[in-house]
Amino acid sequence: MSKLHGLNFIGNKTESGATEFRAINPSTSQAIEPEFAEATIGQVDAAMLLADAAFDAYRAMEPKKRAAFLDAIADQIAGCDEVIDRANQETGLPIERLRGERGRTVGQLKMFARLIEEGSWVDARIDHADPARTPIPKPDLRRMLIPLGPVVVFGASNFPLAFSVAGGDTASALAAGCPVVVKAHPAHPGTSEIVASLILKAANATGMPAGVFSMLQGPSHALGMALVRHPMTKAVGFTGSLKGGRALFDAACGRHDPIPVYAEMGSTNPVFILPGALAERGSTIAAGLTQSVTMGVGQFCTNPGMVIGLQSDAYTAFVDQATKHFQKAAPGTMLYGGLRDSYETGVRRLQGISNVRILAQSQDATDAARTQVPATLFSTDVKTFLNNPVVSEELFGPATVLIAAKSAEDLEKVAQNVEGHLTATLHGTAEDLAANRKLVSILERKVGRLLFNGFPTGVEVAAAMQHGGPYPATTDSRTTSVGTAAIERFARPICYQNFPESALPAELHESNPRSIFRMVDGRHTR
Amino acid sequence: MSKLHGLNFIGNKTESGATEFRAINPSTSQAIEPEFAEATIGQVDAAMLLADAAFDAYRAMEPKKRAAFLDAIADQIAGCDEVIDRANQETGLPIERLRGERGRTVGQLKMFARLIEEGSWVDARIDHADPARTPIPKPDLRRMLIPLGPVVVFGASNFPLAFSVAGGDTASALAAGCPVVVKAHPAHPGTSEIVASLILKAANATGMPAGVFSMLQGPSHALGMALVRHPMTKAVGFTGSLKGGRALFDAACGRHDPIPVYAEMGSTNPVFILPGALAERGSTIAAGLTQSVTMGVGQFCTNPGMVIGLQSDAYTAFVDQATKHFQKAAPGTMLYGGLRDSYETGVRRLQGISNVRILAQSQDATDAARTQVPATLFSTDVKTFLNNPVVSEELFGPATVLIAAKSAEDLEKVAQNVEGHLTATLHGTAEDLAANRKLVSILERKVGRLLFNGFPTGVEVAAAMQHGGPYPATTDSRTTSVGTAAIERFARPICYQNFPESALPAELHESNPRSIFRMVDGRHTR
Repeated sequence: MSKLHGLNFIGNKTESGATEFRAINPSTSQAIEPEFAEATIGQVDAAMLLADAAFDAYRAMEPKKRAAFLDAIADQIAGCDEVIDRANQETGLPIERLRGERGRTVGQLKMFARLIEEGSWVDARIDHADPARTPIPKPDLRRMLIPLGPVVVFGASNFPLAFSVAGGDTASALAAGCPVVVKAHPAHPGTSEIVASLILKAANATGMPAGVFSMLQGPSHALGMALVRHPMTKAVGFTGSLKGGRALFDAACGRHDPIPVYAEMGSTNPVFILPGALAERGSTIAAGLTQSVTMGVGQFCTNPGMVIGLQSDAYTAFVDQATKHFQKAAPGTMLYGGLRDSYETGVRRLQGISNVRILAQSQDATDAARTQVPATLFSTDVKTFLNNPVVSEELFGPATVLIAAKSAEDLEKVAQNVEGHLTATLHGTAEDLAANRKLVSILERKVGRLLFNGFPTGVEVAAAMQHGGPYPATTDSRTTSVGTAAIERFARPICYQNFPESALPAELHESNPRSIFRMVDGRHTR
Repeated sequence: MSKLHGLNFIGNKTESGATEFRAINPSTSQAIEPEFAEATIGQVDAAMLLADAAFDAYRAMEPKKRAAFLDAIADQIAGCDEVIDRANQETGLPIERLRGERGRTVGQLKMFARLIEEGSWVDARIDHADPARTPIPKPDLRRMLIPLGPVVVFGASNFPLAFSVAGGDTASALAAGCPVVVKAHPAHPGTSEIVASLILKAANATGMPAGVFSMLQGPSHALGMALVRHPMTKAVGFTGSLKGGRALFDAACGRHDPIPVYAEMGSTNPVFILPGALAERGSTIAAGLTQSVTMGVGQFCTNPGMVIGLQSDAYTAFVDQATKHFQKAAPGTMLYGGLRDSYETGVRRLQGISNVRILAQSQDATDAARTQVPATLFSTDVKTFLNNPVVSEELFGPATVLIAAKSAEDLEKVAQNVEGHLTATLHGTAEDLAANRKLVSILERKVGRLLFNGFPTGVEVAAAMQHGGPYPATTDSRTTSVGTAAIERFARPICYQNFPESALPAELHESNPRSIFRMVDGRHTR
């Protein structure tokens, strides 16, 4: 890999831009070379027009060609160690974690490659004609999913590989047949440049049309808004803050022609600890909780930010143990200074509520130059939570609030009063679960994933995963941003009526040449 | 059936309201008894709270119980002749057409009943655990679709049965497990009351919870907005005008927690007549087009409102024949005076464009007291269309615009310059289609359904139907409002991680007790 050039990628061309910026190493607070050129609004237009021009050629390609492109990206990334080093400098995330994340990124790309090679995701449906039907003949109808068009992806800060330039949004959009224009996250521009170069190398090696991928650099919000508002943009993928995601969503809804914004905006992921579990293994839960909250310096969308338990001796013992674990937890370097500032503000805001108190913080001193924050354990009661909805808002970082409940009804009241979250977790015995059916039922209406006796961090990439939940967890609870179903976000159905086979996509030919699962005259068949 | 009471249905209770209004018989311009009470904002709140209270009990029911409810509604409607008479008085639609529409309504309800009895629509996915996996064990993940919550349905004027109180939106939402609150269309309040009574009779006979269905009367926009903005409302179904649909969409996007609005807002449904078809059967197409445009007085979302053909002697002959057919077409009674006024305004607006001319109008005089309008055939050329986008906007009623093109490029230019539509149609020979692949490709990006050698009116209710298209045809091109896939609009996925079987829905039990198609460890299986 050659030296970083700091330019924007408009298809295969690299271009300078307007003002320049540099990445900051959060572990040292020092700026890192080189300077990166923020893209201009004119470059937004150029990238989107090029993506639109590439769309027809790209979507017309056989799935195995698009799969080869995804595989080539995966192979490029798998073979690149430089990106790990640069990501480590730009994010402060440990090398080992970044190696794991690279594996996940490669795995996601290959998962989508296999998915489109297999082909059944297009949900093909055929209803045969019945010319003899009265009073009117029945037409021949053939329906399948086709790609939406150019997609804009916003790189996330907290997964500089797996949810960034070649992350899940990009992989699923490219798999669906959509060209992608990435707005790189300004906290890791060098990592983004390296990955963009690898994607373009893969695109050229596999004969993809120019414009199938572009990437623009820069911290400006105007740039993001221009991408969302561009007439050629047909969908948006975003992972980040509620404020940021909502701004993009509002811009998309305000377009002449509104487009879907899949914004995953984080979550507080309530954890309910039921009496049986507390009695059986309160100390294990306290240790597991601390690990889950502090892992990755708490910078996961699925970080468990509130824990509700029934007051009892076992609960008191659990709280004591969690307190000790949090005191011993090491301070951690956050991804960038802005997140550290938000965390500190959030801690102060919670502290300012009467009846919310800090039980524990990391005992070791934090180093401001290393952008460190302490792990923080809060406690409060149900009444305070109910009067202060801010307690259930996401505090991004290694913090959680313990909420003491007095009764099963209290647990239900808390559940009823949280907004949408990505996950909720129950710790309990089988008897606990049977005794708390109503709590489960309430939580089903609030979240996308319900866990039993586990922790929500660590999101499995699988067909059965659901990473998405009711607002404000996401802007579209009907979709997931992790797992194979993520591809459905970037497609829509089209129906061909009485079309001759010569003009139909192969997926809808009578002989099923792609051997996909289809619904034919109401029957699932291959 | 007893006399109409003119009240609102808040669950099983009937209530008066604020101001009163009456239906107008468009065939006589006379008001019809009785007076109907417009619902109050307080009643919006009551209906939505009741729907929310019914939700848990309703969604927890076995699918066969919900299917029995849908079947009971279907049977009630199938056995009711009074609703046909009242609909005839309130809409001016002929008895025969309304009988057909009743059949369609009954068929839709039964289709969704069978769909949920069969059960595979929940898209169940299971990924088994692998406790031995390194570095971390793989959890057990089980995912399926669950209902969104209370749904608000706006009755459409042009299908007083099939897209109104017990129409496709209500049927699919109830099938998904969502309680429904209907805002009745003010042009047919009596028809709506009869159908609401039948639904409640069915609900009580099959043991449904109070609040599973409510219906509010009234013409006020404030009422509709209050329903969309109510915190308990989780999705909205609407069929009507672009202006109305967009207003609801904007209100839903502006909520604290945005919700999906499935607004089907009509369409101009371009028809392209290719040279081979014109030469082979120009006169058949002219007759078929006239029939499609004038059927139901042109009051279908799939009415073909623009027709593009290549200039030639055959095209001239086609135009002449269409002209004669339109002259002979009888004037027709529109559904209500407001639509007649909009049609007349729209005709004048098109007439006002230089180079747009009226080739033909129904020769027989129209009767204002019968709310009649003439069928109208316009003609213009590609240049005029390109300079006046209004030509491709929907003119609701029995009108179409013939657009003369000079070349295949002209056809493509027109296709490229239309916005989203529900359908597009090609008339041609197999050779025509082969020679116009680019035109087909352009149209795939513009519509939800592509027809070959047919007419877009007459929307088959089937698994492979797609009734929905890019904006402004609908607010969500990823969904359909006709066919079995319409149920997906009212559901979202939930994933259970490591849940004991006793706390899982039956659809996710290991033994597959409901015998549904599932994806288990990546394989489709029953």
